[in-house]
Amino acid sequence: MLSTVTMKSYSLAEVAQHNTRSSCWVVIHNKVYNVTDFLPEHPGGAQIILKYAGKDATGVYDPIHPPDALEKNLPMEKHLGPLNDDAAGAEALAQESRPRTKDELRVEAALKQRLPLHRILSLTDMEDEAKKVLSHKAWSYYSSASDDEITKIENAKAFSRFFFKPRVMRPVSRCDPSTTILGYKSRIPVFVSGAALAKLGHPLGEENITRGVASAPLIQMVSSNASLSYEQIISVASPNQVLFFQLYKHADNSIAEKRVREIERLGYKAIFLTVDAVVPGNRERDIKSPWVLEDAERRSTDAPRSSEDIERDEEEGNTFGTAGALIVNDDRDMTWETTIPWLRSLTKLPIVVKGIQCVEDAILAANAGVDGILLSNHGGRQLEYSLPPLEVLYQIRRRSPQVFDKLEVYIDGGIQRGTDIMKALCLGAKAVGLGRPFLYAQSAYGAAGVAKITRILERELITAMQLAGAVSVSDLTPELVERVDWQPTIRSRL
Amino acid sequence: MLSTVTMKSYSLAEVAQHNTRSSCWVVIHNKVYNVTDFLPEHPGGAQIILKYAGKDATGVYDPIHPPDALEKNLPMEKHLGPLNDDAAGAEALAQESRPRTKDELRVEAALKQRLPLHRILSLTDMEDEAKKVLSHKAWSYYSSASDDEITKIENAKAFSRFFFKPRVMRPVSRCDPSTTILGYKSRIPVFVSGAALAKLGHPLGEENITRGVASAPLIQMVSSNASLSYEQIISVASPNQVLFFQLYKHADNSIAEKRVREIERLGYKAIFLTVDAVVPGNRERDIKSPWVLEDAERRSTDAPRSSEDIERDEEEGNTFGTAGALIVNDDRDMTWETTIPWLRSLTKLPIVVKGIQCVEDAILAANAGVDGILLSNHGGRQLEYSLPPLEVLYQIRRRSPQVFDKLEVYIDGGIQRGTDIMKALCLGAKAVGLGRPFLYAQSAYGAAGVAKITRILERELITAMQLAGAVSVSDLTPELVERVDWQPTIRSRL
Amino acid sequence: MLSTVTMKSYSLAEVAQHNTRSSCWVVIHNKVYNVTDFLPEHPGGAQIILKYAGKDATGVYDPIHPPDALEKNLPMEKHLGPLNDDAAGAEALAQESRPRTKDELRVEAALKQRLPLHRILSLTDMEDEAKKVLSHKAWSYYSSASDDEITKIENAKAFSRFFFKPRVMRPVSRCDPSTTILGYKSRIPVFVSGAALAKLGHPLGEENITRGVASAPLIQMVSSNASLSYEQIISVASPNQVLFFQLYKHADNSIAEKRVREIERLGYKAIFLTVDAVVPGNRERDIKSPWVLEDAERRSTDAPRSSEDIERDEEEGNTFGTAGALIVNDDRDMTWETTIPWLRSLTKLPIVVKGIQCVEDAILAANAGVDGILLSNHGGRQLEYSLPPLEVLYQIRRRSPQVFDKLEVYIDGGIQRGTDIMKALCLGAKAVGLGRPFLYAQSAYGAAGVAKITRILERELITAMQLAGAVSVSDLTPELVERVDWQPTIRSRL
Amino acid sequence: MLSTVTMKSYSLAEVAQHNTRSSCWVVIHNKVYNVTDFLPEHPGGAQIILKYAGKDATGVYDPIHPPDALEKNLPMEKHLGPLNDDAAGAEALAQESRPRTKDELRVEAALKQRLPLHRILSLTDMEDEAKKVLSHKAWSYYSSASDDEITKIENAKAFSRFFFKPRVMRPVSRCDPSTTILGYKSRIPVFVSGAALAKLGHPLGEENITRGVASAPLIQMVSSNASLSYEQIISVASPNQVLFFQLYKHADNSIAEKRVREIERLGYKAIFLTVDAVVPGNRERDIKSPWVLEDAERRSTDAPRSSEDIERDEEEGNTFGTAGALIVNDDRDMTWETTIPWLRSLTKLPIVVKGIQCVEDAILAANAGVDGILLSNHGGRQLEYSLPPLEVLYQIRRRSPQVFDKLEVYIDGGIQRGTDIMKALCLGAKAVGLGRPFLYAQSAYGAAGVAKITRILERELITAMQLAGAVSVSDLTPELVERVDWQPTIRSRL
Repeated sequence: MLSTVTMKSYSLAEVAQHNTRSSCWVVIHNKVYNVTDFLPEHPGGAQIILKYAGKDATGVYDPIHPPDALEKNLPMEKHLGPLNDDAAGAEALAQESRPRTKDELRVEAALKQRLPLHRILSLTDMEDEAKKVLSHKAWSYYSSASDDEITKIENAKAFSRFFFKPRVMRPVSRCDPSTTILGYKSRIPVFVSGAALAKLGHPLGEENITRGVASAPLIQMVSSNASLSYEQIISVASPNQVLFFQLYKHADNSIAEKRVREIERLGYKAIFLTVDAVVPGNRERDIKSPWVLEDAERRSTDAPRSSEDIERDEEEGNTFGTAGALIVNDDRDMTWETTIPWLRSLTKLPIVVKGIQCVEDAILAANAGVDGILLSNHGGRQLEYSLPPLEVLYQIRRRSPQVFDKLEVYIDGGIQRGTDIMKALCLGAKAVGLGRPFLYAQSAYGAAGVAKITRILERELITAMQLAGAVSVSDLTPELVERVDWQPTIRSRL
Repeated sequence: MLSTVTMKSYSLAEVAQHNTRSSCWVVIHNKVYNVTDFLPEHPGGAQIILKYAGKDATGVYDPIHPPDALEKNLPMEKHLGPLNDDAAGAEALAQESRPRTKDELRVEAALKQRLPLHRILSLTDMEDEAKKVLSHKAWSYYSSASDDEITKIENAKAFSRFFFKPRVMRPVSRCDPSTTILGYKSRIPVFVSGAALAKLGHPLGEENITRGVASAPLIQMVSSNASLSYEQIISVASPNQVLFFQLYKHADNSIAEKRVREIERLGYKAIFLTVDAVVPGNRERDIKSPWVLEDAERRSTDAPRSSEDIERDEEEGNTFGTAGALIVNDDRDMTWETTIPWLRSLTKLPIVVKGIQCVEDAILAANAGVDGILLSNHGGRQLEYSLPPLEVLYQIRRRSPQVFDKLEVYIDGGIQRGTDIMKALCLGAKAVGLGRPFLYAQSAYGAAGVAKITRILERELITAMQLAGAVSVSDLTPELVERVDWQPTIRSRL
Repeated sequence: MLSTVTMKSYSLAEVAQHNTRSSCWVVIHNKVYNVTDFLPEHPGGAQIILKYAGKDATGVYDPIHPPDALEKNLPMEKHLGPLNDDAAGAEALAQESRPRTKDELRVEAALKQRLPLHRILSLTDMEDEAKKVLSHKAWSYYSSASDDEITKIENAKAFSRFFFKPRVMRPVSRCDPSTTILGYKSRIPVFVSGAALAKLGHPLGEENITRGVASAPLIQMVSSNASLSYEQIISVASPNQVLFFQLYKHADNSIAEKRVREIERLGYKAIFLTVDAVVPGNRERDIKSPWVLEDAERRSTDAPRSSEDIERDEEEGNTFGTAGALIVNDDRDMTWETTIPWLRSLTKLPIVVKGIQCVEDAILAANAGVDGILLSNHGGRQLEYSLPPLEVLYQIRRRSPQVFDKLEVYIDGGIQRGTDIMKALCLGAKAVGLGRPFLYAQSAYGAAGVAKITRILERELITAMQLAGAVSVSDLTPELVERVDWQPTIRSRL
Repeated sequence: MLSTVTMKSYSLAEVAQHNTRSSCWVVIHNKVYNVTDFLPEHPGGAQIILKYAGKDATGVYDPIHPPDALEKNLPMEKHLGPLNDDAAGAEALAQESRPRTKDELRVEAALKQRLPLHRILSLTDMEDEAKKVLSHKAWSYYSSASDDEITKIENAKAFSRFFFKPRVMRPVSRCDPSTTILGYKSRIPVFVSGAALAKLGHPLGEENITRGVASAPLIQMVSSNASLSYEQIISVASPNQVLFFQLYKHADNSIAEKRVREIERLGYKAIFLTVDAVVPGNRERDIKSPWVLEDAERRSTDAPRSSEDIERDEEEGNTFGTAGALIVNDDRDMTWETTIPWLRSLTKLPIVVKGIQCVEDAILAANAGVDGILLSNHGGRQLEYSLPPLEVLYQIRRRSPQVFDKLEVYIDGGIQRGTDIMKALCLGAKAVGLGRPFLYAQSAYGAAGVAKITRILERELITAMQLAGAVSVSDLTPELVERVDWQPTIRSRL
């Protein structure tokens, strides 16, 4: 408190002088920061910061950083102080009078034309609405996947190969789809799988999800890369609400330890250790997103480029898109022998390995004594042509069903319908995770949207269970499903 | 008779005052009914009635209720009496001068442009014509299926995987495709599978079907949810015409018993107990149908909605669409052990279980001693991803062919062609049911349309049999078909 | 000669009076015929003749009847005599001044825009050109197939499932693809499979084919339903050219015998007995073809029809389209036991059974001692969902290869490329038949077109053989092909 | 040198008189050549030369002939001498004022609109850019394949059937994808597969590739049909850069020997003997390319052709397109017994057989003692329906893995992504070849484009390896991949 008294305030002109790699200041929320020394450490690369050297960077900073990012990463002596009043006013004015881009105008109009929520009947309806109101950047980040996005499609398509053998003449008037996940009650066998950067889609970000799943309740897994602080998120949870934490382990064990201790202290109930994202996937649509916008704004009268300009390859520091930057410092050398014992030694929280992609690793995980595994290929965002999680689940069922006795098995990727959930449970999954659908729902309708899709999934699952002759998750056995040998029609909006 | 003399008549103003949940009157065919107490019991939910509280509801009531619905469900003391002459006149005038919706205008024009019947060569041609003349609501109800409508498509696609090994050099000039179903003669191995609400498509409703199949004859299965009374329908049948009854069993055994006794008394010859619809399927296209119409009428100048309006989720009592309402009171706790014996104890009529979807239940049905099973997933309108009936039939043939010796096996779902019928019979079906095609045919051309498609099916089946070297249904054996291991081209209008 | 002297000549007015079923005259090439008694016997039904009762019918008669049809079928006393000169002149004038239909105008224009022949590189190119210059009626008759035309597509698609295992480092500079068929030399293992009504596509009809294949030479199989007389066709053949005959056996053995004796006398070298067309296939596109044209000519101001007109089903005598009529009198009761011995007793010509569609019948044919079988489902024009001939060939290869030792095996259906021919030969076929491609070629370019596609096929086959390491048909063994277990891309213009 | 002094120079009028088959002169780069005697020997046929008889042919000669072609093929006495100054000036002027074709104008505009190189993220992006800037002729030659181009598509599609079973919890921070090919170091297991006529796409031709891969380095295989001389190409290589040679063996052993000795002398390090192109494939799109351009230029007022013109089939000497001409004199009678020993006797260079297409020939190659085999069907440009190389590789892995111990196995065809490379290596390939992508890259951006795609492939491969838990090529084992039994989605731009 006292320190602020002594703080100098800055004019825009002063700030503007520090616009080089050797002296780089930026303004965020009317505060001036000296980020010169931080440039080489910035996970997103120096380039993106230098674009705003000597200027206000609030607009690009906000949606992808939790508010405590600066505190955590920038030494206090680099927090130079506030803009002076003139500067702040000028900045506000500039911001206000800034002409809107075509994309911003599109989003503004779309927000007014959203369907009333009661017309949203399915997760696909929700995605359709979200697509309309999301900025191109957010849509690209949320919806994109690796390379040609085959894996993302195949994740969903895998469900179409499993048909039901429904049983009739069984009493189903009382049907309860609830279950437990790591011992915690869940209204339906569904949880929110870690999905980063919710603020890209809605100003309230991950809070929407926390509030939206409260009434069910469903369990929310919060990503290390959330756009709110872990504390902010859990602080809006209702008293008995359970949150898990998706850990991206920092390469530096001491930094990683700090994060584990923090989330344990905050009350998160389990750790999902992410193992399928040691390097960033090649999400081309995400990387191309700024160019698409640039082209949209470009005047057709712009002069053609010279051959030299065209052929000079300006490789930028960060070609990973929004996503890649987030994991630049993560541990790429984890092993079963070292990482799991290290984590066990730090915390009593249950440990789930997130990102198992074959039977062999499922067995190794069981042997390593973890509490659960999440069969996942990161929604198709990491290794292109990784087997669909449902196929891995099916292979475990056929070749190593003992795995199901040793730990809880979850899957995520491609789930859109109650029948998808039921298929996964029939094959042995304890619960399924959904990521993108929750991001879409909160983007389009905030917490109300999140609550809506939990109700949709519950309704769809109950209907499916009753029509299959099942009244509880224990009735969902492998005998109810059959993998067919033909190529079924796939959903038109897959 | 005498009672009508004493009946009071009502003015429109009087009726209009009873427009709330606490006092709700409606006018139907110029008669006034007090439905206040009935609101909570209405299978379609109170909401839909309240929309017409204090008003004339004939237009929406008629196409989906049999004329005896009010007698059966509303105590006589709630039948308040007729409108007075002024009111009736005013109502008639209002009705007449009511502006037509775009959809009504479209249908009116289409009715004049129908192809002459002799140009209809196939069931697909018939469906094409029906689509043109059906109201959007009727088309949505008839054609829609669950979720993403995959199952409906797969039902039909399953036939494409079975090819023929036709035999040549067999005498085929005399070919007779007739058979018996539960001992009753049928000109071809085809029956009308229960399909509700024929009046949605044509003012004469189910009568069209009864009259249309009379000359063949084919057997008609009448749904519990017919839009004419069971008596009306059977009363137009010719003397030797056979009708079956599709029973939706009421949760209250005594009500269910009343229905069984009624249909037995009326002369229906068999009971098809529906077991695949204990809860309504999620027919999104049907549910969305009113919104589509609403959007079509909406002026583009309508004010945008506020964010609050948009995010408030007005879940209505009935989100099941036209269909769901029909089965709200049905028995969800039927079992092999209780339900079949109960039904046997009530009636000597043959019992067929409609909605068997796997081999295991086919065996249970055989053990339960029923007379037949109808392999069906309700035309894809109930559990999405239920195996196609033809695949279930094929599995019975391969794994449990003894079932065919114990009871008659029928299938429905996806049948469009004579070759489809022949495939099912080759695999062991005694007969096949068609639902939608008969609804389409009566909608487009009344009874003449129904008769037309029976002739089409007969012609196609005879041609197929002769070209395969078969002259009677007993020649249709498994050796004539082969399930292929590639993905055949599917009909373009599937 | 003398008789013509005494013949009366007729005025148009006289003819016009005989325009009823009880007295029906028609004019063909300025001659008057009394066809009253013939009406019930006309294979195409009475209806189509009555449309021209009292009028000139040359235009519709010509393209689908050989010139000797009237001599063969109408007693000489019904040949009433010529039109008088005035009538003939008036008729010619009327014909000339008749306004052209839209379809005729389209064809006229297209004929002038054909690609020069040297630009035709493949059979698909040829089909594309033919489609442009064929009348709608001819295109419909040639290209159509049964029901939804799945079988036609699958016939061709079957070839896509067989890939080559080409051998390298084999001397291939000398490659000779010639073979023998029933002992007769053929430049490539290809023959013209019976295809009727060539005059529909080109005024010279089947002659184009005979002349076009002369130089190769290839063997032409002439259909019983050719649009020229069998004598006309063989009379244009070059001295050593070989023609086979496709026999549709008349139900009346004595009529059938007459035909066999005629073709033997004319010098045809083998009989292909058609067994897959005992009843007409359901070629909807062909049947609909006149309605399509009618609709195209119809003025949009035409009055809407009344509901009664629409719903009255005017089933016409012939709903078989152009094709069905041709086989109305054929023998539907042929058997291995009676028909083959009967035919053997009549002729020493080799007998080939055309239309074998499964392994079982291939074996029966071998046992019956015929000289060859043509695996064929009539180009998909008869039983829809008959197995593709190539699959039947493959099954014979796998399950009953001894068949290949007992008789010659040919296939037709779906062949478009030299690689297709090579696949069939690798699997055991002695030769392959093509039908539609020859009809298309003669329609677009006459005999030159026919010669062109023989050269294309020869070039493609030689290229394929050389690239596979083969230099003669005896090198084409099963080891060179592999049936793949995935779904290959299919030709875009399949 | 002295000889040039005595040389006569020519006027255009003089040259123009020699415009017939009996005396045919052409001008190339202002020099006059008498090619009369050469006409019958020209691999591309006489026809194409005669089109330029008495004229300047530089424009069509340049892009498809190496500069030394005339020296090598035309006796010095036929090099008549230079144009005189007037003629050269007139020629230059004519060239300059020649109106550009629509296609040339399109290319000119496209060159100015190319994306800056840093926006090219994938090989598909590169192909998209190349397609824009390539002349129609070049695009047709580069991208076309045989017949219906099924094989080309299937080559790529084969990769989609192999999915990964990625391993997690393995240290991957240090990942090195380098390998050796025939003992020579390669930065990634990729080489430039022989691809002819680079000058068609870019004036610097194959030099672009040599320079572009220098820094990686990757190994370039230079085609016998390169559009620069073998000496020119290798002369721009950096000191330690390795080049291989793709030998099309001339039918005349002495000519073939001369070529082998030349490339050995020039410093090429290995010989890839092409065995899958003994006759030209049927590349229809390439053959049609000039007609497409002709049609584009044609005025709509051009007179229709007469029927005779249309039906006269002007078969030209060369119907092989750009490609076919190149191999007209190649040896079509190579055998394992004669050709390999002959080549071994000539040179100590490693010998690789390029174009193996089945397991059987892989075994024969191993037995013949060659150093490597390239599984290839010539990018789908030779025998249509040749099995995809990846499938052949998979069959060797399953049925004859001992082959991998005896020689190095490479594959080419359809590779677009780092994951494709990884799949091939997992199944046993030592390295993979890419052809078209390098042609596209040099066409669009010259050497910079080539360097760009090597960086893209390296980045993609490293990412894929790390995400699969692999850090060196020796970690890439069959256990990491699985051939799936469903039909995966294929890349939209396949």
